[in-house]
Amino acid sequence: MPTGRSVRLSDVAAVAGVSLATASKALNGSTRISQATRDRVRAAADRLDFRPDALARSFASGRSGTIGVLTHRAKNTFARPVIVGAVLQLGEQNQAALVYDSDISERKAMTGSIRELQARRIDGLLVIGDGHEHVSPSVTHYFDVPVTYVFTASSDAEDVMYLPDNRRAGYIATKHLIDIGKTSLAHITGPRSSIAADRRREGMVDALTEAGLDPSIPVVYGDWTRQRGAEAMMELIASRAEFDAVFCGNDHTALGAMEACASAGIRVPHDVALVGVDNWEGTVVDQNGTRQLTSVDPELMELGRLAAANLLTPERIPGEHYTAPSLVVGPSTLS
Amino acid sequence: MPTGRSVRLSDVAAVAGVSLATASKALNGSTRISQATRDRVRAAADRLDFRPDALARSFASGRSGTIGVLTHRAKNTFARPVIVGAVLQLGEQNQAALVYDSDISERKAMTGSIRELQARRIDGLLVIGDGHEHVSPSVTHYFDVPVTYVFTASSDAEDVMYLPDNRRAGYIATKHLIDIGKTSLAHITGPRSSIAADRRREGMVDALTEAGLDPSIPVVYGDWTRQRGAEAMMELIASRAEFDAVFCGNDHTALGAMEACASAGIRVPHDVALVGVDNWEGTVVDQNGTRQLTSVDPELMELGRLAAANLLTPERIPGEHYTAPSLVVGPSTLS
Repeated sequence: MPTGRSVRLSDVAAVAGVSLATASKALNGSTRISQATRDRVRAAADRLDFRPDALARSFASGRSGTIGVLTHRAKNTFARPVIVGAVLQLGEQNQAALVYDSDISERKAMTGSIRELQARRIDGLLVIGDGHEHVSPSVTHYFDVPVTYVFTASSDAEDVMYLPDNRRAGYIATKHLIDIGKTSLAHITGPRSSIAADRRREGMVDALTEAGLDPSIPVVYGDWTRQRGAEAMMELIASRAEFDAVFCGNDHTALGAMEACASAGIRVPHDVALVGVDNWEGTVVDQNGTRQLTSVDPELMELGRLAAANLLTPERIPGEHYTAPSLVVGPSTLS
Repeated sequence: MPTGRSVRLSDVAAVAGVSLATASKALNGSTRISQATRDRVRAAADRLDFRPDALARSFASGRSGTIGVLTHRAKNTFARPVIVGAVLQLGEQNQAALVYDSDISERKAMTGSIRELQARRIDGLLVIGDGHEHVSPSVTHYFDVPVTYVFTASSDAEDVMYLPDNRRAGYIATKHLIDIGKTSLAHITGPRSSIAADRRREGMVDALTEAGLDPSIPVVYGDWTRQRGAEAMMELIASRAEFDAVFCGNDHTALGAMEACASAGIRVPHDVALVGVDNWEGTVVDQNGTRQLTSVDPELMELGRLAAANLLTPERIPGEHYTAPSLVVGPSTLS
């Protein structure tokens, strides 16, 4: 077990029977020290589990070991797993996260945070937004370290961005409905103005087209709510459109649609199968894990992790990068 | 707006028309420099928005500006707001968070993280658990910096702990039911072995006793699930016990109880009022903010914030500290 005091270089030098300067040079791999001495010092360092003091190390290297994180209204429920995924990944890389919450949609609101981060000599910066609906003004040019935008687009297309793959989400939801034998789909989703809703719809059209099905299916727009999902399903039923499956743009909409089916005597999934998006714990899953709904998980924690893991690597490619969503099957498509 | 390059001490010295050494001494408040010169240098520093470089500052002070955070299975949904609250508060204090996820219920699993944190020369440590059910083995003696346990008890009663106030949660839920005129309560909750369930029940007894009501009310234990909540409500109805309100130990249980009321033709809140605990977004609230349930919010983000804010202050008192939960009223108690 570790003791209260860290092992020092002087301890290593004493155990190896060399001077402090020799121990330092040996551990730095200096060829001015004999191989035998270098091996002896390395063995002593390993035996003592010596880790160079972080402050001295960072002062010498000019690296702070700290990554700046600018968040946008971090109270937002969906931003939380992204933030947690990012700080956990940074921790795995022994990088600390200096997190400032701000309104990243306004560059002016960020001025103070930008100054602080510059003064702190961060090694890199993650700008974490709250979804696909907003474009963040690029702040990359204020920093001489790598900057990545996560869960938000940047105003500069040359920036490195990590986003959930909404198009792919719509694709795999629709493909699943087709795979279980459904042939007449309908779509209930969020507002017409929503970028996320639009991408998910495009993915749905991709899957329908790929399967040789007519992509001109009934679409009902709404406001992402359970109540509106129920109303939309009622409208679809009243329209006498024929459908045996509904791809719903989010979980709440799908749960509302499911309620409407129940009250109309429509069996789910036999008569109509339903798929949602978000796979949000507490919404689609009971506390004991009983699943109510088939849903597409955007893997938001993974999104934060991937962006953090990429930040200080040489493999930084400008433009949008996506995390693969996953389908989690429940009783609304398989009985 | 900030520029790409930080303002340096040499810039301040040039603007103030003094040497670098004089500028440094003046900003450090040295009395060997005349008051007039000190004022001039301070004014120049303010005008340029000079902030001493963090690495140099921390090397001089021996402080790393970094707080260690040991989390316990951070994927846990309830731990997330605590972690986000903590890292945001640390950011407000210009402290970076070095987050290691581990199994904090096993000291052995934490050995590597403890060594890393010692080497990193953290200024303090937050150990963040996943609720009231587990006691974490104390790691305080491995560190010569302050350690606080958040969202978990510590095995050492002399440690500083921050916990949600489950007893208070039970108290305010029950008091609310009494305040709206209910007089015959029942209680549906989690397992008998749950510490959180027990504390919430104690708080309920406090409120009943305070109001002069008999605290010997029907209690049905369960597993925190919606399904079990519905069954428990059916059992209460079948038992022919008289009750006009049910305090439910969590939201899922309350939602299940609400469903059972609906199918039994019992009007909520007129015949039976219901209160839950957790106030979990996605569970009690629709995406458009339509609230289904009155619930007690344990204020988990605030819990993380308070613990982080207290960590480096002189006001550190051993033992358990609580955050005040808040009641959020919905249609299950007020129509």
